[in-house]
Amino acid sequence: MKRPNIYFAGSIKGGREDAQLYAKIIELLNQKYGYVLTEHIGNSNVFELEKHQSDSDIYTQDYDWITSADIVVAEVTTASLEVGYEIGVATERNIPTLCLARKKFISSMIVGNPKCTTRFYEDLSELDAIFADFFKKAL
Amino acid sequence: MKRPNIYFAGSIKGGREDAQLYAKIIELLNQKYGYVLTEHIGNSNVFELEKHQSDSDIYTQDYDWITSADIVVAEVTTASLEVGYEIGVATERNIPTLCLARKKFISSMIVGNPKCTTRFYEDLSELDAIFADFFKKAL
Repeated sequence: MKRPNIYFAGSIKGGREDAQLYAKIIELLNQKYGYVLTEHIGNSNVFELEKHQSDSDIYTQDYDWITSADIVVAEVTTASLEVGYEIGVATERNIPTLCLARKKFISSMIVGNPKCTTRFYEDLSELDAIFADFFKKAL
Repeated sequence: MKRPNIYFAGSIKGGREDAQLYAKIIELLNQKYGYVLTEHIGNSNVFELEKHQSDSDIYTQDYDWITSADIVVAEVTTASLEVGYEIGVATERNIPTLCLARKKFISSMIVGNPKCTTRFYEDLSELDAIFADFFKKAL
């Protein structure tokens, strides 16, 4: 089977506290599960990378990527408009969507949503098993 | 014309700093522009109101409300997964969507998005004119 295209969603303007974690998640996804379209989300210089793009250019590029993705993986611990938006678009389009959370206090629109799968974790070491299970069922 | 159904989106689990502001926006919308389906978003006891509902019940109710709305109005100043999610669903369904922001640093997926209208404001007194303009064009 062809390597699936993965849209990884993480907070940009909502806060970059988890940028290093995003980079590690992206690395694991790229190594074993598919091709991550949004590798820049884990880059600590994301604002520098995007500074020559208008909001409209960024929207157009990211929207094209979401709608062409086979799988969406979102880290939802940091409250973020863009991550929520991307989950809304993906689930409306029936793209299999995995939400990863390190805390329990997450919006009902995510954890109560039958169109996406939310998995709670405490440590990166748990993610390989979560991904193996999710990708097996989703693809 | 029938009073339009309005889905007002504001942060719940992302943070309740703006709850009183949401209540005032909802009051203005109800007085002059339509019927707000989500009046509880402006209630300072929203967690108390929702405590007997499961995440799944809340999701089902709110999803039904979004998808039956004629207009979505979102206050996007507080970073919030649920507000982002709701904008994603609304825009995918081509429901006219107005995003209100009190700061400039808002996700490109919102401000660069041609499927929703973002208006910046500093004070509540500006909202009546913003609503009058938006509702006239949208309905």
